Amino acid sequence: MPLKNPALYTDFYELTMAQGFFLTGRKNDTATFDYFFRRLPFKGGYVLFAGISDFLGLVQAFRFGTEELEYLASKGFESDFLDYLKTFSFSGNIHSVKEGEIVFPNEPIVRVEGNLIETQIIETLLLNLLNFESLVATKASRIRQASGDKVVLDFGLRRSQGYGGIQATKASIIGGLDGTSNVYAAMQHSLDVSGTMAHSWIQSFENELTAFQKYAEHYPDSCVLLVDTYSTLESGIPNAITVAEELEKKGSRLQAVRLDSGDLAYLSKQARQQLDSANLEYVQIAVSNQLDEYLIKSLLEQKAPIDIFGVGTKLTTAYDYPALDGVYKLSSINNEPKLKVSENVEKITLPGAKNVTRFFDENGDFYADALSLINEETVSEIQHPHFPVKRTTVKGLQSVNLLHPVVINGTIVIQASSAKESAGYASTQLSKLGDEYKRFDNPHVYKVGITKQLKDLRDHLLNSQNS
Amino acid sequence: MPLKNPALYTDFYELTMAQGFFLTGRKNDTATFDYFFRRLPFKGGYVLFAGISDFLGLVQAFRFGTEELEYLASKGFESDFLDYLKTFSFSGNIHSVKEGEIVFPNEPIVRVEGNLIETQIIETLLLNLLNFESLVATKASRIRQASGDKVVLDFGLRRSQGYGGIQATKASIIGGLDGTSNVYAAMQHSLDVSGTMAHSWIQSFENELTAFQKYAEHYPDSCVLLVDTYSTLESGIPNAITVAEELEKKGSRLQAVRLDSGDLAYLSKQARQQLDSANLEYVQIAVSNQLDEYLIKSLLEQKAPIDIFGVGTKLTTAYDYPALDGVYKLSSINNEPKLKVSENVEKITLPGAKNVTRFFDENGDFYADALSLINEETVSEIQHPHFPVKRTTVKGLQSVNLLHPVVINGTIVIQASSAKESAGYASTQLSKLGDEYKRFDNPHVYKVGITKQLKDLRDHLLNSQNS
Repeated sequence: MPLKNPALYTDFYELTMAQGFFLTGRKNDTATFDYFFRRLPFKGGYVLFAGISDFLGLVQAFRFGTEELEYLASKGFESDFLDYLKTFSFSGNIHSVKEGEIVFPNEPIVRVEGNLIETQIIETLLLNLLNFESLVATKASRIRQASGDKVVLDFGLRRSQGYGGIQATKASIIGGLDGTSNVYAAMQHSLDVSGTMAHSWIQSFENELTAFQKYAEHYPDSCVLLVDTYSTLESGIPNAITVAEELEKKGSRLQAVRLDSGDLAYLSKQARQQLDSANLEYVQIAVSNQLDEYLIKSLLEQKAPIDIFGVGTKLTTAYDYPALDGVYKLSSINNEPKLKVSENVEKITLPGAKNVTRFFDENGDFYADALSLINEETVSEIQHPHFPVKRTTVKGLQSVNLLHPVVINGTIVIQASSAKESAGYASTQLSKLGDEYKRFDNPHVYKVGITKQLKDLRDHLLNSQNS
Repeated sequence: MPLKNPALYTDFYELTMAQGFFLTGRKNDTATFDYFFRRLPFKGGYVLFAGISDFLGLVQAFRFGTEELEYLASKGFESDFLDYLKTFSFSGNIHSVKEGEIVFPNEPIVRVEGNLIETQIIETLLLNLLNFESLVATKASRIRQASGDKVVLDFGLRRSQGYGGIQATKASIIGGLDGTSNVYAAMQHSLDVSGTMAHSWIQSFENELTAFQKYAEHYPDSCVLLVDTYSTLESGIPNAITVAEELEKKGSRLQAVRLDSGDLAYLSKQARQQLDSANLEYVQIAVSNQLDEYLIKSLLEQKAPIDIFGVGTKLTTAYDYPALDGVYKLSSINNEPKLKVSENVEKITLPGAKNVTRFFDENGDFYADALSLINEETVSEIQHPHFPVKRTTVKGLQSVNLLHPVVINGTIVIQASSAKESAGYASTQLSKLGDEYKRFDNPHVYKVGITKQLKDLRDHLLNSQNS
């Protein structure tokens, strides 16, 4: 766990509010909060949810020790409240969709219930982890989509946003990448790790051929040669061929060559030709250099004979949409439903503790999701949250509940998924999502409706607040 | 220190190369590497350098313990090399510009000298930290510039890229922000921390006025009321005025109101009027909601009477340019200068260990920077790296060396700067950079030249490689 004090990885106002609730005698009041996002990143059609495993680990470690309490005392917190924090741990319930689930805007992806203080105080930590891991997992799943069955590796650590590189790599694997160069994340999360040489390796020897030979001597069975230090086609590939032939004599095989600059479509075709002419069809071609889903798609459309893609900056920083707008909103107090009004109608929240039900069509593909109040037994019709004439019947369709209990009375009740397990789940779920929702350009909008009961409750509360 | 194993927060290839150098008998060869970036972020005119304090802390902690060595053994590393790593620590020299320095493309900001293995093996860690902290410090300095003497606070933790939020906040302070909501970073780096209430505080009470009153009761001297939960002008501000008057009777003063939605220019003007009409001129107005340097500039140009800006996502993720392209390139081996060729002329590196000299004009403002070889005694003329006819004389101008020793023979020889100290230094340096370089639109390009000796060395090496 890279955070020494997860309880302080928070906004100060969570603590001033917590003390406020304590001092106003409300520490036993109860509350329900929803985590959801409003806008889809990358102009895409879905989000791949991630981060809950890491979050649950930190909720369990969420304690105020001596150092934290002394710090808070120095900031003016009162001794009664600090005494309360001394024995504080999260004792509520958390329901969450599975790591790797496909989710859509305005769905309560995580529902937190408990006393007012504990539900409030974990807000920032929850948002920080779930927003970022879901964002990168989504980006990775787009890259996976573009890459088909090619190998895709994360090389992004050097450009990752500081220590966020730990989570970026884990989320990349959940989203469908095959491995990483990030040793720290690989060790922590049992991921496949790989990497061979940088340009400095080549430059440090008297010439390229010697550099290649020396590497092959010590790594005969995992040798990927970086061929663009001088001239890819005039020296890099010819030298790599020499080394491959030398390796063959020793019973080994050169694994791959890597291109890191220039026109990757042109160079990979030329390289392939040179390698094939030398009867080295088995030597793979790896490429890297500012790759994202669009570039990979374009390279493959151009029939560039590439076997391995290394992606970095664009993936691990989610370069074209670097933050998911997930929020954490109060939906009830002491079992009384609450909503937040807004001048912007899309920002009005949905009151009460809610379920999310996913309906499937006759092929077993995702058909629509329904948000309902938890006391509703069955859902047979849903409507658009803001245009009630837009209705859809879901009667008789197969369905599943997306929200599962993950913490009950403060105890984690699920086995944390490994990144690879979550990746497997995500892959299965994505296969049930129609291609029109996965398109990069103007994807179709997936249907997320609310029940009449939920709509009526919302409108009732809105009217009573406006009066 | 949030990283348990800084030595493994690295790309795998650093370790395969390190073992390769070891196995080829080159562990006592020496090398010099330069850290520099090529492109300015945010379409801006400069970068504010940050991250070196955190980096040096991690270099000192850079050890391979039992857990790390066992992991590497499981990945096939050889026992002789693992024995070498067991006692490994960085024993070389590091020269760096000061934290908070203003720097420009292609300048060696950090120079690392030592044996080949130690200089190689710290690459990824260095890049990860310096790229990100410099990026956010630069963004923060632009926000500071736009905000003039207003108070600016970092509220970005919930949208920060995972644990990168720790560094984002520190870098924001180095770049000129006044404080943060991030308790973890504030405790670690002795920063000013603040925050009061979210919408959930208001919603959790039976009505807004009660919520305000209860908060004021417990925080009479640090009360900032969030006024947009229902209607800013019809309920939020009137209720805040009631509370301010009640506080006055008890000898306290309402500190501020906060607007978090709607048209901030319009609402802040109306709020100011209402407050002033109630003789509450001292109550400040704070605003937040997707702010960046452009929005802040626009609000102030519209004469919005705002005292405090809270900035989040756009700052801590460097939203419009989420990665600095800093690289770490070999410049010599065993004191023999090296360069990396590229088909792209701008990507050809500068060989040899280099100094960076900054020259000042008669007003004491930055005039130009010179890159020279470390054995050059004085610099009197510089030239454009690629157009030698573009020459500038710097003879007789006042100058300083930008690179200072920070690690000698593995020992840190400077006192690590606090974030506030670095912020002070940055502010002084920025005051010496002409406004035309700080402009948001098409800033002037600052002159960074090379000496003839350096140019000749580069061209000589280029020619000998091409032949």
